[in-house]
Amino acid sequence: MSARAGIVVTGTEVLTGRVQDRNGPWLADRLLELGVELAHVTICGDRPSDIEAQLRFLADEGVDLIVTSGGLGPTADDMTVATVAKFCGRDLVLDAALEATIADILKNMMSRSQSWNGVDFESVLAANRKQAMVPAGAEILGPVGTAPGVVVPGTPTVVVLPGPPRELQPMWDKAVGTAGVQAAIAGRTEFVQATVRMFGLPESALAETLRDGEVGIAGFDRLEITTCLRRGELEIVTRYEPDAADVYAALLELLRERHAAQLFSTDGALVDDQVADLLAGRTIATAESCTAGMVAARLTDRAGSSAYVAGGVVSYSNDAKTNLLGVDEQLLAAHGAVSEPVAEAMAAGALDRFGADTAVAITGIAGPGGGSAEKPVGTVCFCVRLAEGPTLTRTLLLPGDRSDVRERSTTVAMHLLRRILTAPGDAD
Amino acid sequence: MSARAGIVVTGTEVLTGRVQDRNGPWLADRLLELGVELAHVTICGDRPSDIEAQLRFLADEGVDLIVTSGGLGPTADDMTVATVAKFCGRDLVLDAALEATIADILKNMMSRSQSWNGVDFESVLAANRKQAMVPAGAEILGPVGTAPGVVVPGTPTVVVLPGPPRELQPMWDKAVGTAGVQAAIAGRTEFVQATVRMFGLPESALAETLRDGEVGIAGFDRLEITTCLRRGELEIVTRYEPDAADVYAALLELLRERHAAQLFSTDGALVDDQVADLLAGRTIATAESCTAGMVAARLTDRAGSSAYVAGGVVSYSNDAKTNLLGVDEQLLAAHGAVSEPVAEAMAAGALDRFGADTAVAITGIAGPGGGSAEKPVGTVCFCVRLAEGPTLTRTLLLPGDRSDVRERSTTVAMHLLRRILTAPGDAD
Repeated sequence: MSARAGIVVTGTEVLTGRVQDRNGPWLADRLLELGVELAHVTICGDRPSDIEAQLRFLADEGVDLIVTSGGLGPTADDMTVATVAKFCGRDLVLDAALEATIADILKNMMSRSQSWNGVDFESVLAANRKQAMVPAGAEILGPVGTAPGVVVPGTPTVVVLPGPPRELQPMWDKAVGTAGVQAAIAGRTEFVQATVRMFGLPESALAETLRDGEVGIAGFDRLEITTCLRRGELEIVTRYEPDAADVYAALLELLRERHAAQLFSTDGALVDDQVADLLAGRTIATAESCTAGMVAARLTDRAGSSAYVAGGVVSYSNDAKTNLLGVDEQLLAAHGAVSEPVAEAMAAGALDRFGADTAVAITGIAGPGGGSAEKPVGTVCFCVRLAEGPTLTRTLLLPGDRSDVRERSTTVAMHLLRRILTAPGDAD
Repeated sequence: MSARAGIVVTGTEVLTGRVQDRNGPWLADRLLELGVELAHVTICGDRPSDIEAQLRFLADEGVDLIVTSGGLGPTADDMTVATVAKFCGRDLVLDAALEATIADILKNMMSRSQSWNGVDFESVLAANRKQAMVPAGAEILGPVGTAPGVVVPGTPTVVVLPGPPRELQPMWDKAVGTAGVQAAIAGRTEFVQATVRMFGLPESALAETLRDGEVGIAGFDRLEITTCLRRGELEIVTRYEPDAADVYAALLELLRERHAAQLFSTDGALVDDQVADLLAGRTIATAESCTAGMVAARLTDRAGSSAYVAGGVVSYSNDAKTNLLGVDEQLLAAHGAVSEPVAEAMAAGALDRFGADTAVAITGIAGPGGGSAEKPVGTVCFCVRLAEGPTLTRTLLLPGDRSDVRERSTTVAMHLLRRILTAPGDAD
């Protein structure tokens, strides 16, 4: 047994990409937590025939639960409730108690806000009466804004929620508690979801390991594995029923055995989390050329980072490298700005100028111009350095365009920091 | 006549919301520009039966064109091409020339990057042979990464594109040129699309202007207007058939008349483009506290920025403000780090230390901690300064969480730069 669900996101602004949908991903997470399998997310405009076609599609696919978002406003183009009622073969009826609730909310809003000055209350009420029309026999979800949601029990059960995330999210919890939703998800299976992260492993090498796992690990098909490559990091998410935990343990063992050097997280933690933990009690400074502040911005992305981030220098020009980081002009002349000696001098300068105990320096050619036969576009030199001595220096040739090289460099820097802070003795 | 399209986004990581889909919105825009009406976007995981169900749904809805994204990788869970072939009733055949092309690309990648060390070339080739299997009679779109796309002509025509946006986007242009796509979109209507950008105007004020336009401008309903508020910038996109150009001109006139101070772009240019143009022949340096490098990273985002960006200081700690930017300790003690005098001293320090003629300084409280009754979270002080004298200093209270405050501050800084460089005489 299992329970499957589909999500219908409505709204022309979402369909055309002007507004990013935040409800689909949020609802996907909630369904996963509940153990309900999400099969499809569909997006359409505010056209009733398209909404109905998507509802029909999901019902034909045999989902137990459909969740819709959007199209509950007072204006004429908001048609979701009427469309769902028609689809479920139910009449639309005025709920008097709901109408009174909406009237109270509107009265309250209009008395609190100046922007309603000069607006006639009766005409607002008339426009909003539409929002009190619900499918006969539906369970009503009280409004968080002005729009109520509804749960129409059946096969499938349809949950109709408003578009604004701050209204949809609290209403979802109420929806899950209704008899209609509980009946629809009765067959749900509990799943465990676990994430492994690797850095620097090609996707095809992982594919080979997984093929070997398929052959060598009993019950391997009980694991649902998805992999995703992003900025040089491989994310491997595995979903399984609790009694397949030993199968997952065998997979984890295989990944550890084959890719120990690349595997950096088995608990879902990001390299950012790990570096933040490792920096506790320390002080870091950055010296960036081609990434021009991206590492500093990433290190300070999380609250509380002022405890360990002193600051940084964006030394885009050679003068800046010399004047602000104390890089020797002769070193620049001898090796060029993109070189390991200069990266090391930048890191030393950052330690010194900020009185820090940890430094990261990056100098590279992000392109599209500036490359040469010897140092093509994508050549980036890194140095991470601890005041107590350990230093890691690396030169990489990174693929992609200017933006790729800059983003990838930022991620490489995070991984080098993680490495030197985890095992300073391994530095060279 | 018209042409309708559907988009199928595949990938369990997108369905489950772990990765945000960037292809749907991008393709939606391209279809819109072509005059093709987008009816549905559907998202499913890497399960062939779900992908096939969505293709069937769109075909049943009568779309002329289906565009898929994702599922073209070398791993076993990437099944889009095989699924499309089956759906279109075509065999999957090995394209020898394509296989050779992919082998060349892989050889090149492996020779350039250290991360492939120890990986067996033959096993990589075997894993990637799958990518050279194409539906019989399909038009092949050469790989941008390693994955080729295909166009399968028919009713509907199906365009199969890779998931990574930097591979999908260039490949889309090739796809549009194929006979299969041209036949599918033959019935399209030509549209003009124009974009206006404003900064600092509330959405409700724009709504009022548009209501007035509806009354006062003849033929207003021939304009399809969508508005989007993002990081304090309002984007107004208007679509119209070429012979409604005079109606659009009247709208533009109305927007100019009512919102001259907020309107900064009528040709689609971003504030980033404008600031880059205005900086030609100048040298800029940054001094950032709460944004910690985000302004420097944004200024250097485009190719050629080394011509005018000298560098910057991320002065996260007070010591960094004093030691690297020469901000007087007594000034910090008297006014606090988040204050206009400190922002001005940071800008002056950036001009001086980098020998620049243009500087931007930001110091603020991004939160969640660090706020007070007098200076709540979101308080940010800005100073833009030209070496020849003009200075603009502002303190704003920005809404949202830590990430919102940092992003919004970066955008405000860009607009203040634009302002002082456009009309230095207006500075105070």
